[in-house]
Amino acid sequence: MGKKYAIGIDFGTQSGRAVLVEVDTGREVATSVKMYPHGVMDEYLPDGKTKLEPDWALQHPQDYLDVLSETVPAVLKEAGVSPDDVIGVGIDFTACTMLPIDEDGTPLCFYEEYKTNPHAYVKLWKHHAAQDEANRLNQIAAERGEEFLMRYGGKISSEWLFPKIWQILNEAPEIYERAAKFIEVADWIVLQLTGQERRNSCTAGYKAIWHKHKGYPSPDFFKALDPRLENVVDEKLSRDIYPIGTKAGEITEKAARLTGLSPGTAVAVGNVDAHVSVPAVGITEEGKMLMIIGTSTCHMLLGKEEKMVPGMCGVVEDGIIPGYLGYEAGQSCVGDHFEWFVNNCVPAVYQQEAKDKGISLYRLLAEKAEKLAVGESGLVALDWWNGNRSVLVDVDLTGVIVGCTLLTKPEEIYRALIEATAYGTRMIIETFEEAGVPIYELYAAGGIADKDPFMMQIYADVTNREIKISASAQTAALGSAMFGAVAAGKERGGYDSIVDAAKAMARVKDIVYKPVPENVRMYDKLYAEYKILHDYFGRGANDVMKRLKEIRRQVAKA
Amino acid sequence: MGKKYAIGIDFGTQSGRAVLVEVDTGREVATSVKMYPHGVMDEYLPDGKTKLEPDWALQHPQDYLDVLSETVPAVLKEAGVSPDDVIGVGIDFTACTMLPIDEDGTPLCFYEEYKTNPHAYVKLWKHHAAQDEANRLNQIAAERGEEFLMRYGGKISSEWLFPKIWQILNEAPEIYERAAKFIEVADWIVLQLTGQERRNSCTAGYKAIWHKHKGYPSPDFFKALDPRLENVVDEKLSRDIYPIGTKAGEITEKAARLTGLSPGTAVAVGNVDAHVSVPAVGITEEGKMLMIIGTSTCHMLLGKEEKMVPGMCGVVEDGIIPGYLGYEAGQSCVGDHFEWFVNNCVPAVYQQEAKDKGISLYRLLAEKAEKLAVGESGLVALDWWNGNRSVLVDVDLTGVIVGCTLLTKPEEIYRALIEATAYGTRMIIETFEEAGVPIYELYAAGGIADKDPFMMQIYADVTNREIKISASAQTAALGSAMFGAVAAGKERGGYDSIVDAAKAMARVKDIVYKPVPENVRMYDKLYAEYKILHDYFGRGANDVMKRLKEIRRQVAKA
Repeated sequence: MGKKYAIGIDFGTQSGRAVLVEVDTGREVATSVKMYPHGVMDEYLPDGKTKLEPDWALQHPQDYLDVLSETVPAVLKEAGVSPDDVIGVGIDFTACTMLPIDEDGTPLCFYEEYKTNPHAYVKLWKHHAAQDEANRLNQIAAERGEEFLMRYGGKISSEWLFPKIWQILNEAPEIYERAAKFIEVADWIVLQLTGQERRNSCTAGYKAIWHKHKGYPSPDFFKALDPRLENVVDEKLSRDIYPIGTKAGEITEKAARLTGLSPGTAVAVGNVDAHVSVPAVGITEEGKMLMIIGTSTCHMLLGKEEKMVPGMCGVVEDGIIPGYLGYEAGQSCVGDHFEWFVNNCVPAVYQQEAKDKGISLYRLLAEKAEKLAVGESGLVALDWWNGNRSVLVDVDLTGVIVGCTLLTKPEEIYRALIEATAYGTRMIIETFEEAGVPIYELYAAGGIADKDPFMMQIYADVTNREIKISASAQTAALGSAMFGAVAAGKERGGYDSIVDAAKAMARVKDIVYKPVPENVRMYDKLYAEYKILHDYFGRGANDVMKRLKEIRRQVAKA
Repeated sequence: MGKKYAIGIDFGTQSGRAVLVEVDTGREVATSVKMYPHGVMDEYLPDGKTKLEPDWALQHPQDYLDVLSETVPAVLKEAGVSPDDVIGVGIDFTACTMLPIDEDGTPLCFYEEYKTNPHAYVKLWKHHAAQDEANRLNQIAAERGEEFLMRYGGKISSEWLFPKIWQILNEAPEIYERAAKFIEVADWIVLQLTGQERRNSCTAGYKAIWHKHKGYPSPDFFKALDPRLENVVDEKLSRDIYPIGTKAGEITEKAARLTGLSPGTAVAVGNVDAHVSVPAVGITEEGKMLMIIGTSTCHMLLGKEEKMVPGMCGVVEDGIIPGYLGYEAGQSCVGDHFEWFVNNCVPAVYQQEAKDKGISLYRLLAEKAEKLAVGESGLVALDWWNGNRSVLVDVDLTGVIVGCTLLTKPEEIYRALIEATAYGTRMIIETFEEAGVPIYELYAAGGIADKDPFMMQIYADVTNREIKISASAQTAALGSAMFGAVAAGKERGGYDSIVDAAKAMARVKDIVYKPVPENVRMYDKLYAEYKILHDYFGRGANDVMKRLKEIRRQVAKA
């Protein structure tokens, strides 16, 4: 048997990419990226006339098909690999990114009659216009004492499935009526490739309030939201949920024509970009947390028991690796935080200096900040510029800087913001451990993890844990390829389990960030200050942030 | 009797200026400014070799004589006024700015043998190298239960007279021994002009712990500091203190040769720049607070009774206007605050925009900030970038910003910093009123008051009080000229009291900043938030700022 390959296809927010990977080594042979032609639609529909309300974020499903039809042939061609040597395909998607389809899987927005109806399109994960529905859902769930709330840190996000479906029902009942199904795009792609509706346990668990043993919330609960929603699960979704790591089906003739793959190629059930990255860095057991650090940070962790961790985003059995509870937590403002600072708070002389040195402002700030000793700035910040996801689950919290003097320099503030995000991660780690979910070691993936050793060292020092870094620049796509190899199975040249696949294919860099004891000691002191401020502003002692936001809202209305 | 004139001479930190004023109208006829040739010496003595320690700030007394010999003839010449028509001279100085002199008033630094001894020179008000002495003085005074502490908000500043004298004794006992007297430069200038030592009640009261009825602290107290200081008052100072508004003497033949004035011209006792400005804006009665707004803000207020106001800088009978208690308070960081922000936190695109529009960055920020509604930014700051003078008297407090989001703009932070200084002023006003010293109306002088209507309107809205602005660009010098006219007396064409002088000579601008009711209502809400944070961080609930400073100090040592 010659070399076998798997393809992972990762659908991001702005683009999709295919990566062709050697099954026996995990080596990434070829990559192809396709920007979505319609991008993120947050102002107009494709007609250029139908205007969208604030907080909307849509996509066009044709863009995803374009990714399939362009990137897969491109990697085959680039690698010079025959489709017959590709044994499996895996895909991952942003989530909850969902759309209404008809009986045969056609998106409603493909029909002429619905082309000008915004609700017929894909609602992207960051579509935030269902906040009213989310608020009411949370209120009713709390009043009814629904136990599922605890599995999601006490709150269902407006980004998730049921608020989005409910918004459609409220604002476009004709779309709700016409839709045969609502489906995660991850599962819709699998449907396109295999002809099979095989909903995955990851998105069902994290985004659709599904539990392996308890299923969905009861019809009574949905009825309490809206009588028309009573049977939403049976009428518009499905109770058949397939664990991550399952084979969904095989490439159909039609899909073969679309992608250039051979009919019969194994396809894994869909997955989520963050979650699929866990085995891609080699994590297939408990105690190791993966941080995917980008504009925001997503924390992934495996456990053997279901524990209720305050402020987590979710805990889902088989949600990340089959046989484990998958925990998710998050920080809503990380890279965004630094971008805000660089765009708004760095003086012209620094910009000139960066220009003269031929480096970015980020690099210049990091160079200057790196020279500071731990504690030298005298600053502590709360990293809440975009609210707090874990562990407080409160979008109305805002950012704080304490300790400014007339000698405070931009690089000191920059470093304080980085440290604040590290303290936020430590708060998450400690909250998991206090709830009985241990964390021994950290892994990091994403652009910042890859490119910012200064920041990674701060994370190691603040958390007092070693940090390993994903070796792949396309960690999610690599993970999807691994699941493709598992879908193919050992007999066809793949693997029988994701654990086996990870042993052969997962990779981290040689460099490991190790905590420096003297920095750890100093950061313990600074973290103690962060924690006092965190609890003071975040746990009700002084709700100044909420009152200031309320004043802002009043002023904006006036 | 033809037109009569008075001359006010204001000695600032970088320069001295003479203003020639019409006695009957207060009209400023001529001004002359002289930069000090030696400026502020904070690195080297004039020999260019003798290095100064950090926190030192010295001046050369010859510079002051140069101001007298150049600016007074210059204003006489410019105005075309005969010296015989100048009936009086008044002077004001920064304080506590002091020097050691010999028996005939010669500064020790004029002697060849002391030219390389830093302690022989003038210690400028902002010489901060006597902090150790101040700390020990405060500790001993507190242990002994010295009641004078309450008259100074609980703390004697390192900027004041006795810490500076004690530092000389500790570090240069030969200078302490050789000095016949230590004297405020305000009084030394009067000595140069009149040949008389006539120490003024303003600097004695605010800077030398002197009380009209209780005198100086006891020899027992000084002995407790250092046995050698037991009789410091009788040996090195004087117990003869002259109230503000008194005639000190007349121009001597020698002083006439120096200044071009006529021998016999009346000279008022010396005064302090901030305090002398009070009658210059027409304040000669209680209930009206003058804010002199520059890099820092000085608050001046008259009262009829001596009240102990928490955190005031001082209360002195006859300290501002004879017959009244003069209260002083202060904010240590106002213009400095904005300068820090403009230098460190404004992005290059804003600098370019200011350049394109041909305006300063301050102006650009004010234009943008002015468009914001009250409360729109969602920000509240604590104005403690340089510690807090009144009402907390704590140099170890630091700045805070609360409420940042990813949409926060530089002009919003800028406005929040301005508002924070206004809240700080309101805190001072409320503290005075709670202590039984009422404030009905505000006056403002200084560069910011003169040039920043946007900021003045915020102050009016935050404090809910009308604000009048000094009409003079040289408020202090005008005030000194008024005291010169009082020293001359009515018979010689002047006035019998500063109240009479103020009626004729004091001036405010036509514009009055009036509180806008809807802004007042909104600022009441925001001030309530400021107050909660002020008390939380400033009154011991969370001493995070002190702990962070302590960490900084440890790190700096390591």
